[in-house]
Amino acid sequence: MAIRTVEEYKQSIRDDRVVYFRGERIKDVTEHPFMQITLSQMALDYIVANDPKYRDLFVDEDENGEPMRFLHKPERTTEDLLRRREIVQLMARMGFGIPGGSNTTGKDALNAIAVVCDRMDRQTGSNYRERVEAYRQRLLKEDPAVIGAVTDIKGDRGLRPSKQVPHQDYYVRVVDRNKDGIFVSGAKAHISLAPLANEMICIPCRRHKEEDKDYAVVFSVPCNAKGITMISTDHEIDDIDNTFDYPYSSSIFFADAIVIFDNVFIPNENVFMDGEWKYSGDMAYAFGNSHRLFADSYKYVELEILAGAAFLIAEYNGLERVSHVQDKLAWLTMYCEAEEALAEQACVKPVQDPGSDLVYPNPMYSNIAKFFFAENYHQAMKNVQDIAGGLVCTVPSSKDFFNPETRELMEKYLTGKHGIQAEDRMRAFRLIKDLTSAWHGTLTIHGEGSLATQRMSILALADVERYKAAARRVARIKSDKEHPLYEGLLDYPPKV
Amino acid sequence: MAIRTVEEYKQSIRDDRVVYFRGERIKDVTEHPFMQITLSQMALDYIVANDPKYRDLFVDEDENGEPMRFLHKPERTTEDLLRRREIVQLMARMGFGIPGGSNTTGKDALNAIAVVCDRMDRQTGSNYRERVEAYRQRLLKEDPAVIGAVTDIKGDRGLRPSKQVPHQDYYVRVVDRNKDGIFVSGAKAHISLAPLANEMICIPCRRHKEEDKDYAVVFSVPCNAKGITMISTDHEIDDIDNTFDYPYSSSIFFADAIVIFDNVFIPNENVFMDGEWKYSGDMAYAFGNSHRLFADSYKYVELEILAGAAFLIAEYNGLERVSHVQDKLAWLTMYCEAEEALAEQACVKPVQDPGSDLVYPNPMYSNIAKFFFAENYHQAMKNVQDIAGGLVCTVPSSKDFFNPETRELMEKYLTGKHGIQAEDRMRAFRLIKDLTSAWHGTLTIHGEGSLATQRMSILALADVERYKAAARRVARIKSDKEHPLYEGLLDYPPKV
Amino acid sequence: MAIRTVEEYKQSIRDDRVVYFRGERIKDVTEHPFMQITLSQMALDYIVANDPKYRDLFVDEDENGEPMRFLHKPERTTEDLLRRREIVQLMARMGFGIPGGSNTTGKDALNAIAVVCDRMDRQTGSNYRERVEAYRQRLLKEDPAVIGAVTDIKGDRGLRPSKQVPHQDYYVRVVDRNKDGIFVSGAKAHISLAPLANEMICIPCRRHKEEDKDYAVVFSVPCNAKGITMISTDHEIDDIDNTFDYPYSSSIFFADAIVIFDNVFIPNENVFMDGEWKYSGDMAYAFGNSHRLFADSYKYVELEILAGAAFLIAEYNGLERVSHVQDKLAWLTMYCEAEEALAEQACVKPVQDPGSDLVYPNPMYSNIAKFFFAENYHQAMKNVQDIAGGLVCTVPSSKDFFNPETRELMEKYLTGKHGIQAEDRMRAFRLIKDLTSAWHGTLTIHGEGSLATQRMSILALADVERYKAAARRVARIKSDKEHPLYEGLLDYPPKV
Amino acid sequence: MAIRTVEEYKQSIRDDRVVYFRGERIKDVTEHPFMQITLSQMALDYIVANDPKYRDLFVDEDENGEPMRFLHKPERTTEDLLRRREIVQLMARMGFGIPGGSNTTGKDALNAIAVVCDRMDRQTGSNYRERVEAYRQRLLKEDPAVIGAVTDIKGDRGLRPSKQVPHQDYYVRVVDRNKDGIFVSGAKAHISLAPLANEMICIPCRRHKEEDKDYAVVFSVPCNAKGITMISTDHEIDDIDNTFDYPYSSSIFFADAIVIFDNVFIPNENVFMDGEWKYSGDMAYAFGNSHRLFADSYKYVELEILAGAAFLIAEYNGLERVSHVQDKLAWLTMYCEAEEALAEQACVKPVQDPGSDLVYPNPMYSNIAKFFFAENYHQAMKNVQDIAGGLVCTVPSSKDFFNPETRELMEKYLTGKHGIQAEDRMRAFRLIKDLTSAWHGTLTIHGEGSLATQRMSILALADVERYKAAARRVARIKSDKEHPLYEGLLDYPPKV
Repeated sequence: MAIRTVEEYKQSIRDDRVVYFRGERIKDVTEHPFMQITLSQMALDYIVANDPKYRDLFVDEDENGEPMRFLHKPERTTEDLLRRREIVQLMARMGFGIPGGSNTTGKDALNAIAVVCDRMDRQTGSNYRERVEAYRQRLLKEDPAVIGAVTDIKGDRGLRPSKQVPHQDYYVRVVDRNKDGIFVSGAKAHISLAPLANEMICIPCRRHKEEDKDYAVVFSVPCNAKGITMISTDHEIDDIDNTFDYPYSSSIFFADAIVIFDNVFIPNENVFMDGEWKYSGDMAYAFGNSHRLFADSYKYVELEILAGAAFLIAEYNGLERVSHVQDKLAWLTMYCEAEEALAEQACVKPVQDPGSDLVYPNPMYSNIAKFFFAENYHQAMKNVQDIAGGLVCTVPSSKDFFNPETRELMEKYLTGKHGIQAEDRMRAFRLIKDLTSAWHGTLTIHGEGSLATQRMSILALADVERYKAAARRVARIKSDKEHPLYEGLLDYPPKV
Repeated sequence: MAIRTVEEYKQSIRDDRVVYFRGERIKDVTEHPFMQITLSQMALDYIVANDPKYRDLFVDEDENGEPMRFLHKPERTTEDLLRRREIVQLMARMGFGIPGGSNTTGKDALNAIAVVCDRMDRQTGSNYRERVEAYRQRLLKEDPAVIGAVTDIKGDRGLRPSKQVPHQDYYVRVVDRNKDGIFVSGAKAHISLAPLANEMICIPCRRHKEEDKDYAVVFSVPCNAKGITMISTDHEIDDIDNTFDYPYSSSIFFADAIVIFDNVFIPNENVFMDGEWKYSGDMAYAFGNSHRLFADSYKYVELEILAGAAFLIAEYNGLERVSHVQDKLAWLTMYCEAEEALAEQACVKPVQDPGSDLVYPNPMYSNIAKFFFAENYHQAMKNVQDIAGGLVCTVPSSKDFFNPETRELMEKYLTGKHGIQAEDRMRAFRLIKDLTSAWHGTLTIHGEGSLATQRMSILALADVERYKAAARRVARIKSDKEHPLYEGLLDYPPKV
Repeated sequence: MAIRTVEEYKQSIRDDRVVYFRGERIKDVTEHPFMQITLSQMALDYIVANDPKYRDLFVDEDENGEPMRFLHKPERTTEDLLRRREIVQLMARMGFGIPGGSNTTGKDALNAIAVVCDRMDRQTGSNYRERVEAYRQRLLKEDPAVIGAVTDIKGDRGLRPSKQVPHQDYYVRVVDRNKDGIFVSGAKAHISLAPLANEMICIPCRRHKEEDKDYAVVFSVPCNAKGITMISTDHEIDDIDNTFDYPYSSSIFFADAIVIFDNVFIPNENVFMDGEWKYSGDMAYAFGNSHRLFADSYKYVELEILAGAAFLIAEYNGLERVSHVQDKLAWLTMYCEAEEALAEQACVKPVQDPGSDLVYPNPMYSNIAKFFFAENYHQAMKNVQDIAGGLVCTVPSSKDFFNPETRELMEKYLTGKHGIQAEDRMRAFRLIKDLTSAWHGTLTIHGEGSLATQRMSILALADVERYKAAARRVARIKSDKEHPLYEGLLDYPPKV
Repeated sequence: MAIRTVEEYKQSIRDDRVVYFRGERIKDVTEHPFMQITLSQMALDYIVANDPKYRDLFVDEDENGEPMRFLHKPERTTEDLLRRREIVQLMARMGFGIPGGSNTTGKDALNAIAVVCDRMDRQTGSNYRERVEAYRQRLLKEDPAVIGAVTDIKGDRGLRPSKQVPHQDYYVRVVDRNKDGIFVSGAKAHISLAPLANEMICIPCRRHKEEDKDYAVVFSVPCNAKGITMISTDHEIDDIDNTFDYPYSSSIFFADAIVIFDNVFIPNENVFMDGEWKYSGDMAYAFGNSHRLFADSYKYVELEILAGAAFLIAEYNGLERVSHVQDKLAWLTMYCEAEEALAEQACVKPVQDPGSDLVYPNPMYSNIAKFFFAENYHQAMKNVQDIAGGLVCTVPSSKDFFNPETRELMEKYLTGKHGIQAEDRMRAFRLIKDLTSAWHGTLTIHGEGSLATQRMSILALADVERYKAAARRVARIKSDKEHPLYEGLLDYPPKV
C-alpha cells in the first residue's frame, strides 16, 4: 500500500501513449502547455495526499500502518459517502469549482464494478468479486490515476449497437478472444482526463438485449495499451497564460478525449463483465448513480462561485438594494443551497443491496440533485448575466488596462460604485463571461448523464403504488391491495 | 399531565364563543354541519393519542407515569424534529394531505415563544422563560386545542402599523393596560381552525420599529374571551355530503377566520412579549421557521396525492407509455421527492442558539423547501390537468352516474382504457378538479408565508461572504479578509 | 334570408330533446335555472343582431335587401377574418370574457367543411360543394343555433378507433346506410352549448387510416334527432343567483355535454364526408385552425379581465409601487397584448388554397397564439394569486358582509388601502377566486386542442428547409439545394 | 445625393482616429485583421447599395434622379417600417444573423431626433427641426457611416448622474460652451461599430431631472474629433481565420467600444438637444423603440439559424423522431415565428404623434417582441445544447480532422446517423458552440435595453383603465368613469 508523489505520477505517464491535440500527436503529455493544465488538476490528488494538512482526510492506514488512499476503498457506510463528499468539495474549493484529482470518475467506475460484480456473483454464481478485490489491491498498492470510460461514441441514436451502419464499432465490443483474454474495438467519447491517466475502467453506457451481448463488456486497460488512440478535444482559448481575461479557462482543461480501441487485448484478470447482457444496464446505472453524487457534490461549490460572482458584481455595480436584483440573488442562493441539501440526503439515506456489505447513494436523491442543477443552470446563467450587464460582452482586454496610455481612462470609467477598483470589476466581468459559456451550459446538461436520463431514472424509481394509494384514498377508489403506508389507516373524516 | 378524549374536547368548545359563518352566528360549533368538517380534522389528534396503535408516537410519560402530549414538549434534538415530522406525515396520510389535529399552528407558536423568550431573557435580562414554562405545564396538564394567530389583517401594505389610516387597528396592538394585564385591539386574518380551538397564541407578523412598539405584543388568549369576534371564511362548496364529486372539499375545511379583538383583556401570565419591539421580527421569524417545516412535512404527502392522481389518470386514459406524459410524471415524482429531501435536511442540520438548550429547524432549508413547493405548484397543477384531459372540466355529475336512465351509457363511454371502471375514472377526474382549485393554488403560495417572504429569508440567510470568496478566488481578486472555507487553500493551479 | 328573434330561438329548442343534468332529464331546457345561464349566453347573438347599435357588425343584406347573418357567410378576405375577430371580441367584452352566441363553434365547423369540401372536390372530383352551399343557404334563411361537435369521447388513447375494446363506438362512425342516408353511432365529448343548440356539425377529431374509414364521416344533425342523448356536465357552483361570491360562475355555463349517438339517421344532403379517410385530418385540422383563431380572439378579452383583476387588487392592497408586483403586472400586460398581436397576424397573413376562393387564418400564427396563452396561463393565475394574497382563500361570504351584526367590522377591517371600499375589495377577491379555478386552468390547456396538438401542428408547419439553410450558411455546410431565401446571397464576409 | 462605394468608405475612415484594441493603438483601422471583420460587416451596406440585384431595395431617387439611401429618409408609413424590416432581414440573412451595415444604430438615432425634435418644436416653440433636416440632407449627400451612441458608462447605478462620486463624467454632459457650440465630456459604453464609423449621434440613455440638465444633450460628432478616445472590446477568439471551428466568431465582430469624450467641441448645427431635460427620456425612449424593432427584425433571422442548427443536429444524431426532441424543435419553431409576428405587428400598427407627419413602431409590440426573445433565449440555448449532446463541449479541433493521421478515425466515428458526413456534423457542433456562448446570452439580455427596461416600458404603456374596467364589469364593481370599450355595453347576462 502506498501513496504516489507528483513526480512518480508524472513519470508514470511518459509512456508513448497516442494522444492527438489540435492536429498534432503529443510527444510527452507532461510537457505540453495545454496538457499541463490538466496535469495540474490531476496532480492535486498527489499533492494533498502528501500534505500533512490534508493527509488525514485522504489517506488511511492498512493493518501494517502503510498508507492507503481512502478513495480506492469500498464504500460501506453513510460516513464513507459523506467523507468522499468532503474530499470532493475541498478539492473543488481548491480547484475553481472542479474537484481536481486523478481518481474522480475512476472512483465511480470502481464503485460500479464492486456493487454490480457483487450482485452478479450473488445472483448468477459468477466469480467476479475476487477479480475486483485483486484489482482494488493493486490500486491501493500502486496508487495510479484511474478513470472511468463509459459513454460510447454512438452513431445513429435510433438504432441499437449491433444494428448500426455502416459499421458496428460505435459502441465498444468484444471482437475476438483467446484463453488469456479478450480483444475489444470501438470508441468512447467525452473521456475526461484520459490523456493523462494511467488506466481506465470501461463500462457500457446503456442496457443491452441478448443480440448485443458482445457489447456487454467491462474491463480495465492502461491508457498506453497497444491499439488505443486518443484524440483530445480542443480547448476553449488559445491564450492560456492570461489568467485575468480567462480566469477559469486558463486553469481548467479536461482534455476530454475520444478514445478509440482497435483490437485492444485485455487479459482476463482485468475483465469484470463479459457477455452478461442482463447486467449492462446495472453497470451503467451504478456508475451513473455514484457519478451523479460526485457531480452533485462539486456542483455545490461551482454554484457557490456562480452565486458569488453575482453578489460581487451586484455590489460593484451599486445594485445590491434593487428589488429585482435581490430576487435574483435570493434565487441563486436557493439554487446553490438546495443542491447541497438534495445531495446530502443521498448520503444520509444510502441503499444497500440485500446480502451485500456495500452501500451506494440513494439513487432517487442523486438523480434529483443532478436534474435540479442541470434543469436550472441556464436560468442561473441568465440571472448572473442580467445582474452583471452588457460589459460582460463588451469589456476591453486586460491588455488595455495594463497599457499606460489607457490605464488612467479605464481606472476613471470602469469603477462602478465608488470605492470599487476598476481592476476588480473587470476581473468580475471576465469571470462571469468565462463561467457562463456554451461549454458550461452544455457540460451541465450532459455531464454525468443528460436530463432525459435523469427523468427516466426518476420515473423508474418512483414509488408509484404509494402515490396511487394516496390518491385513491382521497378519491375513495377501492383497490385490492394497498401500499403499506396507506393500509389500515383510520377512516377519514372520523365520525365525531 | 393528561390526554383529552374527543368528548372532552367537544365539550370544551361549547362556550358561547362568537363565530359567524355565511351570514349567521353559530350557536354551537360542534353541531354545525360545516364546522363539523373542521371538528373532524381537529379531533383526530385526540383520537390517535388515545388509540393504542398510535399512542407511542404521540404520547410520552412524565416522571409520574402520566401521559404527556409530545407536541407540547420543547424540541431539543434532531430526533424531536424528526418525530414531529413523522407525526405530521402520518396525520397527513390519514387526513387527505392535511395533518389534522388540534395543535398544528399552536405547536409552531409555542416553539416560537420558547426560542425567542429564551433569547430575550439571555440578552436583555427579562424573565419570560418562567411564564413560558408555566404555560407549557398548563398545556401538558389540560391538553387543549391551541393554535397560532400571526397574520394581521393589514391595511395599506405600503404603510407601517402606526401610520395606517383611517384607524390603527389593522395590526393587533396594546390599547390599554393595568397592573394585572393588558388590553388589546385589532384583527388577525386567515386564522385556521380558530372557531374550534380552545385558545390562541398571538404573535406579530413583521418586524417593528420603536414607533410601533405597541404592536410588539405576544400573548395567549381563550377563543371565547370577551371582545373576540370570529368571522369564518366561506366554504368552497355547498353539497358537503357529496364525497364523489367533491372528495377533498367535502372532507377538508379550515374555517379560517378573521379574528377581531375589541379591547380584550390579557392577564400578565399570558403575555410573552410586551413592547420589546426589537424582538418582534424574531418572533415572526421563529414562528415562520417552525411553521414552514410543518408545511414542508405535510406537503410531501399532499404531493404524493397529486402525483398519484396523475399516475392514476395516465393509466385510466391509456397514456402511461406516451413520452411527454412520462416526462410529466417524472417531473411530478421529482417535485414530490425533492420536497421530502429538502425538508428532512432542515431536521438533520438543526440550529441551536448559543447558550440555549432548544433547537430549531435549519432556516435555510425550511425556507427553501417551502419556496420550492410554492414556486412549482402551479406547474404541477398544469401537468396534472394536461395529463387528465378536458373531462376534468366537463365530466357530468355523479348523480347522472347513479341515475339508472344514464348509468349504462356512462359505463359504456367513460371507461377509458379497457378494464378500467367508469366510476373510478370519474372519481379521478373529480379528485383532480378538487385538488387543482384556486383555493389550492392560493393556499400554496400564501400559506406559511408568501414567496416574497421566503426570498427575503433566504437572502438574509445567504452566506454571502463565502460566495464572494469563492468567486474572488477564481477571478484572482484580492481581499483583506477571507472566508474560513477559502482561507489558506493551496494555490491553484499548482505548479507541477 | 332572415335574422331570428330571441323568442323564435327559445321556441325552436322546445323540442323534446333528451338532455340530462345532475341526475335528471330536463323537460324544457329554456325553463331550467342552470340551462338559463347557457341560454343567456347563446341568446346574445339574437339580441345584438336585432339591436340597431350593433346590427351593422352582425348583419349584411342579400341582393334582395334581406338580412343575412355575416357569420354564416364564407370567409374570403383578411377583412372577413378581422370582422369575425371584432364580433368575437365585442361579444367577449359583453360576455365576461366569453363570446356568447349561438354560432361560435358552428362557424368554425362551417368554415372547415367549406374549405375541405372545396379541396376534396378539386382533388378527387367529388361534389360536396353543392351540398355545403345548399346547407349554407338554409342557415342564412333560418338562422339557427348551430354548433360544432368534434372531440370524440375516445377510450384507450394508445389504440386507433377501430381497435378499441370492448366496443368500437368510442369514436363516432357509420354503422349502417341506405340509399337516403347513413346511420351513425358513438359519442362526442365536451360539446359546448349542445343542450341548447338547434343542430350540430360533426367532424372527426383526428387523422384516419383506411382501416378506420367508417370513422371518416362529417354531417349535420338536429340536436333533437332520434337516438341522440345528451348528458350535460355538472356546474361549478350551486348558488347561481349569488353574483357577489361567484361573479363568473353565476353567469357562465357552457353545459358541455357528452353527446351519444345511437344509430342516428343522417339524410344524404347533410353528409359532407363519408369514407374519404385521407381528408379526416384535413377536416379536424381546418376546424382546429378556425377554432383556435376564435379562441385567440376572445382570450385577449379574458386576459384583459385577468390583468384587470391584478391591477385592481394591487391598488386595493396598496401594492402598486412594490417592485415585484410591478414586474408581475408588466408580465400580465405583455401576456395579454402579445396574445392580441399573434392572433391578429393570423388574419393579416391568411392562407388560400390554390384554386380556392376561400381564405383561412394563417395556421402557424393561430397555433402559436393558442399555444402561447395555454402555455402561460398557470403562470398568470399564479401571478394574480400572488398579488392578491391569502384572502382569495379565506375571504368570508358576502352574506357576512350583508349581515348587520358583522357589517361594521368588515367595513372596518377589509378596506385595504385607505379610500377603498371593503365591498369592492371583497368582490375583487371573489373575482380572482372565480377566475383562477381548476376549470379555467383545464379549459385553457384543453379547450381548442391540447398543448401537444399545437406542438404537433407547429412542427408540421415549420419551414424546416429554411431553418436548416440558415444554419448551414453560417457553418459553411454545403447542400445540393438551397432554400430560396438563402440562395444566391452574396458571400460572407465580403472581401473588402 | 449620392451612394458611396466601398473604397470611398474605407478611405473616409483613415483619419487618425484614436482606437485602442488589446493594449495597442491601431494605426489604420482598415488594415487591422480584427477590425477588418467589422469593416466587412459595415461595408456590406455599400456593396448592396451598388449591386443592381439589391439596389432598388436600398436606394431611391431624388427629384433630380440622383440616388438617395432609403435608410437616411424619414419614416412616414407602415410601408416605410416594413421596408426597413425587409432590409434588415436581408442583411441579416447575408450576415449570419447580424444585419451588417453602416447605418444600423445610426438610423435609430436619426429616427429618434426626428421624432423628438419635431415634438419639442411643436410643444416648446424650439427650432430643432431645421437642424435635423439640414443634417439629414448632409447624410443623403455624403452617405457616411453613422451610428448611435446612447448607453453612458454609468457608475453607481443607485445614484443620479450629477450625484456620482468621485467624478461626474460617468454620463456624457456639457462642460463648457461658447457662441459657436458646446464642449462635452464623459463616456459611452457598448458603442458598436464606433471604431469604423464616420460619425455618431449621441443621445442620453435615461430620463433626467432639472438638476441633471447638463446631461440632457444630443449631438452628432465625427469619430475622429479631437478629444475622443475609443477602446474597443476584446474579441471572443484569437484564431480568426478558422471558419470551421469558429464559424460565427471568425466572421462577426462589433468592435463595441468605450468612447471617451474629453472636452470635445460640438458646433451648434450638430446639437439637437441642449438642456431640455424634460425630453431626455423621450429621446432615450424614441431611440429604444426604433432600435428594438430593428433588433426584433434581425433576431428573427438569428432564431432561424438557431432553430436550423437544432434541426440539423437532430437529424445528424438520428434523433428527429424522438418525442422530447420533437417537442423542443416545436418550441424553437414557435419561438422563432412568434418573434416575427410580434415585430411585424409593431409595423402594421404604427403610432403617429398628433400634428406630426412621422410614424414610429408601435412601442407596445416592439417592446414585447424584444422582451419575448430576450426572456426565452437561454431556454432556447438550453434546448439546442440538449438536442446536440456533449460533443458540443468535447469535439476535437478541425485540425485533427485535417490531420491525415487521424482523419480516417474521425470519419469513421463522428458520422452519427448513416449517410451523414463527419465533417458536416463537426461543423454543426462548432456552430452550436459558437451560437450559444456567454456573449450571445448576455447580448440578448442587454442589447437594445435590458429586460427591466422592457418591463418598465410595457407597464408604462399598459392600458390599465381598460383592464380594470374589464375586471370591474365581471365583479360588478361600480366606477364613476368607464373605459370607452366597456361603456354602454348591454347588461350581462341578458334576461331572456
